[in-house]
Amino acid sequence: MIVVDWGSSSLRAFRLNAAGRIVDQRRAACGVLAGTDQFADVLQQQIAEWSDPLIVLAGMIGSRQGWVEVPYVECPTTLADIAAAMTPIDAPTFPDRSLWIVPGVLYRAATPNGVDVMRGEETQLCGLLQRVDTTRHVACLPGTHSKWVIIEHGRIESLFTAMTGELFELLRRHSLLARLMAADNDALDVPAFVQGIDRARQPGGLLNHLFSVRTSGLTGALQPAQLASYLSGLLIGHELLDSQWAEQARGFRVHLIGSPALLEPYSLAMRHLAIAVEVHDETLAAMGAHALARHRGLLDDSFHNTP
Amino acid sequence: MIVVDWGSSSLRAFRLNAAGRIVDQRRAACGVLAGTDQFADVLQQQIAEWSDPLIVLAGMIGSRQGWVEVPYVECPTTLADIAAAMTPIDAPTFPDRSLWIVPGVLYRAATPNGVDVMRGEETQLCGLLQRVDTTRHVACLPGTHSKWVIIEHGRIESLFTAMTGELFELLRRHSLLARLMAADNDALDVPAFVQGIDRARQPGGLLNHLFSVRTSGLTGALQPAQLASYLSGLLIGHELLDSQWAEQARGFRVHLIGSPALLEPYSLAMRHLAIAVEVHDETLAAMGAHALARHRGLLDDSFHNTP
Repeated sequence: MIVVDWGSSSLRAFRLNAAGRIVDQRRAACGVLAGTDQFADVLQQQIAEWSDPLIVLAGMIGSRQGWVEVPYVECPTTLADIAAAMTPIDAPTFPDRSLWIVPGVLYRAATPNGVDVMRGEETQLCGLLQRVDTTRHVACLPGTHSKWVIIEHGRIESLFTAMTGELFELLRRHSLLARLMAADNDALDVPAFVQGIDRARQPGGLLNHLFSVRTSGLTGALQPAQLASYLSGLLIGHELLDSQWAEQARGFRVHLIGSPALLEPYSLAMRHLAIAVEVHDETLAAMGAHALARHRGLLDDSFHNTP
Repeated sequence: MIVVDWGSSSLRAFRLNAAGRIVDQRRAACGVLAGTDQFADVLQQQIAEWSDPLIVLAGMIGSRQGWVEVPYVECPTTLADIAAAMTPIDAPTFPDRSLWIVPGVLYRAATPNGVDVMRGEETQLCGLLQRVDTTRHVACLPGTHSKWVIIEHGRIESLFTAMTGELFELLRRHSLLARLMAADNDALDVPAFVQGIDRARQPGGLLNHLFSVRTSGLTGALQPAQLASYLSGLLIGHELLDSQWAEQARGFRVHLIGSPALLEPYSLAMRHLAIAVEVHDETLAAMGAHALARHRGLLDDSFHNTP
């Protein structure tokens, strides 16, 4: 089968063997917000060489801006619920194949304007659910919009987004702070990053702490090449400390799921804050999609007749 | 005399009579970061019709990016300290005039990376110091970078910046959230603004709350034309609630100093949060510059010989 994690800015495709192991993969920058709505053509280009009859799609491809809008499944929810809500696509471009979209998950907190959502991460979490027991688990999936998820009894209980990655990019590229930073130095400067985390622990909110990027540059406390790392530490520190999930996660090991580029700073920040962490890579998405397809009965010989 | 409040993005010039009252004023978009360093020529264009022999400049014009870098005065500091640190400019463009730059103020908190600074606001605060007694006062000067200042015994004791205005602009114009907002509707929608403030009071940090702009649009809880006001309420709510100055300000009436466009939402937010507020307009800058000039002895008949 083929699994496609198709987000806002990029697409990752995995080819799995019958046992669910990844045998090939590719990545392309043609995300859902890249400008085209010719999703079938884009997909065809990416997986032309793979003839597998089942294709499972997850991520923003199931959003209002995507191929077909698939309603969210609401928390608390299980792998079985998500599998049952998978939606087939009628795609003439793929006459002999069966295409399915995995629904996103919605969490409705009791507070006003307290709804939260994810699309794509639920598939990675379905992979995680294959690995963990039925006690409480906390997962962190860092990114443009980081997701924090509480799992218990094999259910996704609640989820919280932090716009850490997007805010970093806005401030790194477009703000008055950006003027002080070295232009293209995005290597992690560990001492500056740790200073940023420590700043996040001090009194004063994020809106105030952000200005210390400017004053640390102004006073020479940090060099221009260090300021982006300091900003990153500040934002990730606030993500880890400021939040209701931090309360709920206390005493738990956090399952950290993401790309190597994000695992490095998040692992470092968690260790610095004495948060126990277990690292998983992004291939959990493939494992999760395989488990969903199995639950939905799509891995039988006759699956491509079932939609 | 002439007072020029010359910031990053704009310049405001006031002409005062001998009693310190504003008799004329103008505003131009030629801020310090507007691209030119021909500051004398820009100033000449703005005040050509005003022949007054004394010109006092405040704001980013005294920064590294400005006309002449004037070192900061450190907290705690008084009007007399600031007056004593005013720096004359040698400006051949103005042969028969005397030009002075007011220094900014720097606050050095005991915590690492805890320095804060302002340029321009100190002149408004010198105006406020003419009006208040020697007990503790808290001032809020909202803007691109809002300043919160603690005054006691007639001294500026400490100051804190919140990057509220800049973050609003970044998120309003350049973020994924901006895609959901009505394009040019910047009128304040009061119910949405108040929802934003209330969201800021709930558990979870700013990085999490920002995402509720998206989900409130997605679920239809707010209309596209309301989302910018909701975002504004969220950010101003965090500025008012999250901060060490909120602790220090508890039980005090806040002196709110700013342009009418900012006074409206800030007054509304403070009333909603039961923070007592007293409003001052931006002409405090002229009053403050006049007081500084008087303290420095620049209002004698012979002042233009003193530099």
